[in-house]
Amino acid sequence: MAVRGSSQRAVACPIGRAADILGDRWSLLILRNAMIGVTRFDRFRAELGIADNVLSARLNRLVEADVFTRIPYRDGGRTRHEYRLTQAGADLLPVFNALAGWGLRHTRGADTAEPMRILHSVCGSDLQPGEHCATCGRRVAAEEIGWLRPWKSNEPCAIAEPVEEHGGS
Amino acid sequence: MAVRGSSQRAVACPIGRAADILGDRWSLLILRNAMIGVTRFDRFRAELGIADNVLSARLNRLVEADVFTRIPYRDGGRTRHEYRLTQAGADLLPVFNALAGWGLRHTRGADTAEPMRILHSVCGSDLQPGEHCATCGRRVAAEEIGWLRPWKSNEPCAIAEPVEEHGGS
Repeated sequence: MAVRGSSQRAVACPIGRAADILGDRWSLLILRNAMIGVTRFDRFRAELGIADNVLSARLNRLVEADVFTRIPYRDGGRTRHEYRLTQAGADLLPVFNALAGWGLRHTRGADTAEPMRILHSVCGSDLQPGEHCATCGRRVAAEEIGWLRPWKSNEPCAIAEPVEEHGGS
Repeated sequence: MAVRGSSQRAVACPIGRAADILGDRWSLLILRNAMIGVTRFDRFRAELGIADNVLSARLNRLVEADVFTRIPYRDGGRTRHEYRLTQAGADLLPVFNALAGWGLRHTRGADTAEPMRILHSVCGSDLQPGEHCATCGRRVAAEEIGWLRPWKSNEPCAIAEPVEEHGGS
């Protein structure tokens, strides 16, 4: 699952390697939306207000970095591609949860809505970082985590599951 | 402690606000080095191989975002400034630990050294995300965390403490 694309240099520091892939505002916003189920070009474009060429370049970069994989689908008579998280992509969830925690604590948002919450869907409590839920004690699987984004919806968004990979190269 | 600089927009999503500040490769690399005690312009420049004007722009942006604060010091006859982490800056540690974990798991590094480890200095074991050490059970304070970067040193680097803030504006 290691990244082989040319955009990633084999520096010794894993934070440096992660920064090569994630040190880009648009890539972070695209991946944030992918985490809650966005997969299609048109929807990324509409939700992010990003120019076609910029979005296309970022998606290609994230495919090259093995964070996304391209899956064909039929749209009327045409074949298009959706961008599905690989296991490496899905494993970015703790990074995004940490960014959410930091952003909540140390940046000031619009005052128009309740703040984002990261919920344990099994017991309904707010989750802190770590493997176990501090409220119910269960080991927390990714599919038990929901992002509540009250400025969008009163229902928490489920975290997207990675596409199944079938070995091969 | 909320960010008031013009570089940060008051969007509702805390991940979006964090991405405004952290979605930049150089800023991540500068902050990574600040986490382990780098504070001075010349040392950031030497360790990162970054151009003066780029480094200067990034440092200014991170001061504006209230992640760094500028502290004067005397260098021979001159007054210079060092860049010290604020509490908001120091609280980025879980983000960097998550980036390190992901980079270790999903990117391939140079094969010239043992990989980075995040250690609990009290008991010497590898730390996983979360408030408590899975080995010794203690609640882990930031000052008990060390980053072992074997390609640089066989001794773990202590995590930098934030500068003390004295209220006022």
